[in-house]
Amino acid sequence: MIGVYDSGYGGLTVLRALRASLPTHDFVYLGDSGRAPYGGRDTDTILDFAEQCVERLFEEGCELIVVACHTVSCVALRHLQRRYITNVSRDTSPDTPSDTSDVSRRILGVTIPAAEAAVARSRGHIGVIGTARTVSSGTFATEIAKLGPHRVTQRAAPLLAPLVEEGWEDGEIARLAVSRYVAGLGDIDTLVLGCTHYPLLTDAFAAALPPSVTLLDPAPFVAARLTDWLGRHSGFVAPGTGALRVLCTGDPERFRAHGERFLGEPLPAVSHVAEEGGRLAHKARVEVRVGQVVR
Amino acid sequence: MIGVYDSGYGGLTVLRALRASLPTHDFVYLGDSGRAPYGGRDTDTILDFAEQCVERLFEEGCELIVVACHTVSCVALRHLQRRYITNVSRDTSPDTPSDTSDVSRRILGVTIPAAEAAVARSRGHIGVIGTARTVSSGTFATEIAKLGPHRVTQRAAPLLAPLVEEGWEDGEIARLAVSRYVAGLGDIDTLVLGCTHYPLLTDAFAAALPPSVTLLDPAPFVAARLTDWLGRHSGFVAPGTGALRVLCTGDPERFRAHGERFLGEPLPAVSHVAEEGGRLAHKARVEVRVGQVVR
Repeated sequence: MIGVYDSGYGGLTVLRALRASLPTHDFVYLGDSGRAPYGGRDTDTILDFAEQCVERLFEEGCELIVVACHTVSCVALRHLQRRYITNVSRDTSPDTPSDTSDVSRRILGVTIPAAEAAVARSRGHIGVIGTARTVSSGTFATEIAKLGPHRVTQRAAPLLAPLVEEGWEDGEIARLAVSRYVAGLGDIDTLVLGCTHYPLLTDAFAAALPPSVTLLDPAPFVAARLTDWLGRHSGFVAPGTGALRVLCTGDPERFRAHGERFLGEPLPAVSHVAEEGGRLAHKARVEVRVGQVVR
Repeated sequence: MIGVYDSGYGGLTVLRALRASLPTHDFVYLGDSGRAPYGGRDTDTILDFAEQCVERLFEEGCELIVVACHTVSCVALRHLQRRYITNVSRDTSPDTPSDTSDVSRRILGVTIPAAEAAVARSRGHIGVIGTARTVSSGTFATEIAKLGPHRVTQRAAPLLAPLVEEGWEDGEIARLAVSRYVAGLGDIDTLVLGCTHYPLLTDAFAAALPPSVTLLDPAPFVAARLTDWLGRHSGFVAPGTGALRVLCTGDPERFRAHGERFLGEPLPAVSHVAEEGGRLAHKARVEVRVGQVVR
């Protein structure tokens, strides 16, 4: 089973590409919607949340987890890989296979597939737009620098994910906000949509950028890379029937209703998981309490 | 000393009104900017954060704390008052004086002054706009119902506080977003700005509403009520010199730079406080970590 982890709804755009490429695999999606957005949070909080979510997905029976959230992938992927896949010390290169590697499971991110796709398409100047934390991590620039001598111009766009969460991705407000954010990106020839919410703003980005700029949604490249990896590691993930289970930390009914815009098809019933003693456990959803609360 | 607590920058608009009314009092402002926004968070998290912030302000020497954040005031004020001011059980009315009351300190909110001001001005139909949590609490409607038979129409506007945080309160995006949110408010005659960020959007609200609608920023009414209370309880708060100290949980340099738009004057140096074992303690700001983080 393949796990897909995101801070909320956005990763459903990645899940959509993964299921299109791997129609007979089973997926579990975990959206940490009750604690989203991650983009402005401090690093330790992101590491805590990411550990809880990854542990939940392993407990659900996943052999392989895709960290679909660019913020987590940029900040915490290395940490998650070291903690759950290998026991090597932090001084050892994470690319060096280790005797203590747990070869029965894998955690993959979205940054490297996005960087590879951008470098393959760019004529020399790549733009990256994402959350404040994604941009301040500098991880996209680091990964692109490993692949070629391209210039990279980054822009944090803190308002775009909330705008999509609000369901306002179509219309004048989205177009104006996207225009304002991309205005400072100069003569880029390729723009990486470095947040899983942004594919829903494709029309607004296309309207705001010159036609010569390639707009790059990393999701299909993440799917292509995973499909390739599974082809080279046949048997790593047990075959399935195209089943999908969905978990979230927020309101499951709201998640199911809003998720369809991101997944492109209706979601199955959504299960609620919530933090309990530092772990995410299956729990019945507690009602939103009305009025003054006393505990 | 008077403490003012808010989830971030917004409460500086309340502090501005308080300092204008009480120029010789000393204030400590605590903005929980590192954990903002509160508006979409679950109730227990809001209670945890509010306890930590109130405890920090009492430790700073405050005799009286104004909870400037409408989300906290709507959800957690009663809890804070019971926990820190009285030891009465939750079955006792909080308005009943108790032998176990700690009469040396007080915690006041912003909801009741706002409700009183709205009822005094409205001809019968009051609109309230605020965060998702403020609206789902129903506290404004409850407090207004205690004062008169007015109709109340509420609207959650999750995008407006992030929009102001981004510094985009002037211009077309703000005007369009505000218009979209107020469109469903019907024939209201008074609109309560139920979030401390919204006074910065006054121009956008004025442009979106008919001139017959009274736009109500609760801040001056909160200040008038506190001034009146202090007049009736002279000696409760030790007199001062108009000094101001500012604490925040996020980046103190950023807080100082952005806070001026909310306070209407430059902020003094901002001290950093951070969570440590469930308490907020003074701590040197940790640098934002770049790249992949391993711990």
